[in-house]
Amino acid sequence: MFKFPFIPREEKFFCLFEESARNMVKAAQGLKMMIDTWEDVEGKVAEITELEHEGDTITHQIMAQLHRTFVTPFDREDIALLANAMDDVTDFIQAAADAMLIYRVDYPSQKAKELADIIVQAAVEVEKAMPQLRHRTDLKQVLKTCVEINRLENAADRVFRSALAELFDDTTDMARVIKWREIYEQMESATDRCEDVADVLEGVALKHA
Amino acid sequence: MFKFPFIPREEKFFCLFEESARNMVKAAQGLKMMIDTWEDVEGKVAEITELEHEGDTITHQIMAQLHRTFVTPFDREDIALLANAMDDVTDFIQAAADAMLIYRVDYPSQKAKELADIIVQAAVEVEKAMPQLRHRTDLKQVLKTCVEINRLENAADRVFRSALAELFDDTTDMARVIKWREIYEQMESATDRCEDVADVLEGVALKHA
Amino acid sequence: MFKFPFIPREEKFFCLFEESARNMVKAAQGLKMMIDTWEDVEGKVAEITELEHEGDTITHQIMAQLHRTFVTPFDREDIALLANAMDDVTDFIQAAADAMLIYRVDYPSQKAKELADIIVQAAVEVEKAMPQLRHRTDLKQVLKTCVEINRLENAADRVFRSALAELFDDTTDMARVIKWREIYEQMESATDRCEDVADVLEGVALKHA
Repeated sequence: MFKFPFIPREEKFFCLFEESARNMVKAAQGLKMMIDTWEDVEGKVAEITELEHEGDTITHQIMAQLHRTFVTPFDREDIALLANAMDDVTDFIQAAADAMLIYRVDYPSQKAKELADIIVQAAVEVEKAMPQLRHRTDLKQVLKTCVEINRLENAADRVFRSALAELFDDTTDMARVIKWREIYEQMESATDRCEDVADVLEGVALKHA
Repeated sequence: MFKFPFIPREEKFFCLFEESARNMVKAAQGLKMMIDTWEDVEGKVAEITELEHEGDTITHQIMAQLHRTFVTPFDREDIALLANAMDDVTDFIQAAADAMLIYRVDYPSQKAKELADIIVQAAVEVEKAMPQLRHRTDLKQVLKTCVEINRLENAADRVFRSALAELFDDTTDMARVIKWREIYEQMESATDRCEDVADVLEGVALKHA
Repeated sequence: MFKFPFIPREEKFFCLFEESARNMVKAAQGLKMMIDTWEDVEGKVAEITELEHEGDTITHQIMAQLHRTFVTPFDREDIALLANAMDDVTDFIQAAADAMLIYRVDYPSQKAKELADIIVQAAVEVEKAMPQLRHRTDLKQVLKTCVEINRLENAADRVFRSALAELFDDTTDMARVIKWREIYEQMESATDRCEDVADVLEGVALKHA
């Protein structure tokens, strides 16, 4: 039986988006596990860095595909924004993990665990939205997923603000304050970028629904 | 008498831009009043945060309108950039106010007052530019307004730099140094984003004049 | 003999890009010389600031040219991205130099010298890529130059990370730690933006090769 020999190009974009989202979720789970167990930090950071490089490769493939394709499933600009926003999430996750290693920080606080938990949840929502992009009938579902991502970003923001306040309650070790402030910022930026993903997805859903 | 039943779509964009600019000015004035009086900081931050949410809603409406409209008064990209830059100004104003609350800072310095003052002036200039976008004959005026916004951004930059130098003159309380450095940065970023607004406006004026 | 009286518009873009790149290289060399000699810091910062203003003017000319031109040598968006990314490199170089002055820092560390050295190398690679944009036959060469810029960005990242770790090894003078952390960040951002330039160049090369 004859089979069409190539994956149609639309399909390729969706596959790459799903791959990027899955990779981002893995990085988020790696960060959470690293923070929860606090064992073999160096090995865990190496794994997350590996995922970050993998994310770069996928983003690269999306951009190369974009340059080669005339008819795209949705606006070229939105494809580029979506690819870059997911890549940024993974980058911030890696930066947070890496900073813990570079700064040789002490055991993570409860707030760090809460933030890691929200990052995983937000990443999982983004991953959920990707297959919903494939069919017009699922675009309403995309909007619901975006609402949930925005809710998680707000939750992360509240934890971040209380983590900062808590950090400055005890300023005897200022180096510790500065290190953790940066780590919290990276973690909060990861959820911020999930919200950027949601903004792009919402635009796509509104344009095509 | 017959009346045209809908606001034409071009009109809608200008109305939303003016609304966003007005909202941004209110946030700037709120920050200035909070810093000048230094009373009921929590209540004032709540009001500014309310304005920041209002700004999100307006930006959202602009983007939704953009997705629904085929013929726009100027380039779609410029509309999106303008909406987001004004939203960013309001965000940075809110972030500066919020940081003062989170960090429970002491009484604001003279430099903080100067920065708040420049932010109000820059926001007022941006607000002034919005109705000037409506008519081609006013576009020359837009360019003059942009020059004034750039001048204010340079002034803010000078105050910011001297505020930083002053801050590091006394490093006995490093927590104080770190907190105020962040607040100054947020305030300086607010004027930076006013300059981004001016850049977009200048582009629009040059393209359509 | 008759000579065509105007530089064709395509030519103009390439000239401005080359001018911007050359200006950026000069700023990078200025930073390196300032850090290497550590003499007349104020005068050297003034020179770099002058170059930064010059960079603004060139970027402005590119954007004005873009608004006046219907047929551009490559995508309008890429022209804008390229102009802004080179401008950002110069901005971060100036910000790093300026921070050393504002903060009245002590003699630069070995790591600062290494970073300045990489910034010069990355800027020189960007400068090399600009004339390669002029001819389709040179676009393969552009891709090689991009690989080299990426390699330099990775090298800068490694130096940056070890500089941060080194900085927090001795936290008796926290003001010093904070000041240098910011300076290192600005320097690292300069190489980051060279990578942004490389990303745009790669896109252009892939689209037109």
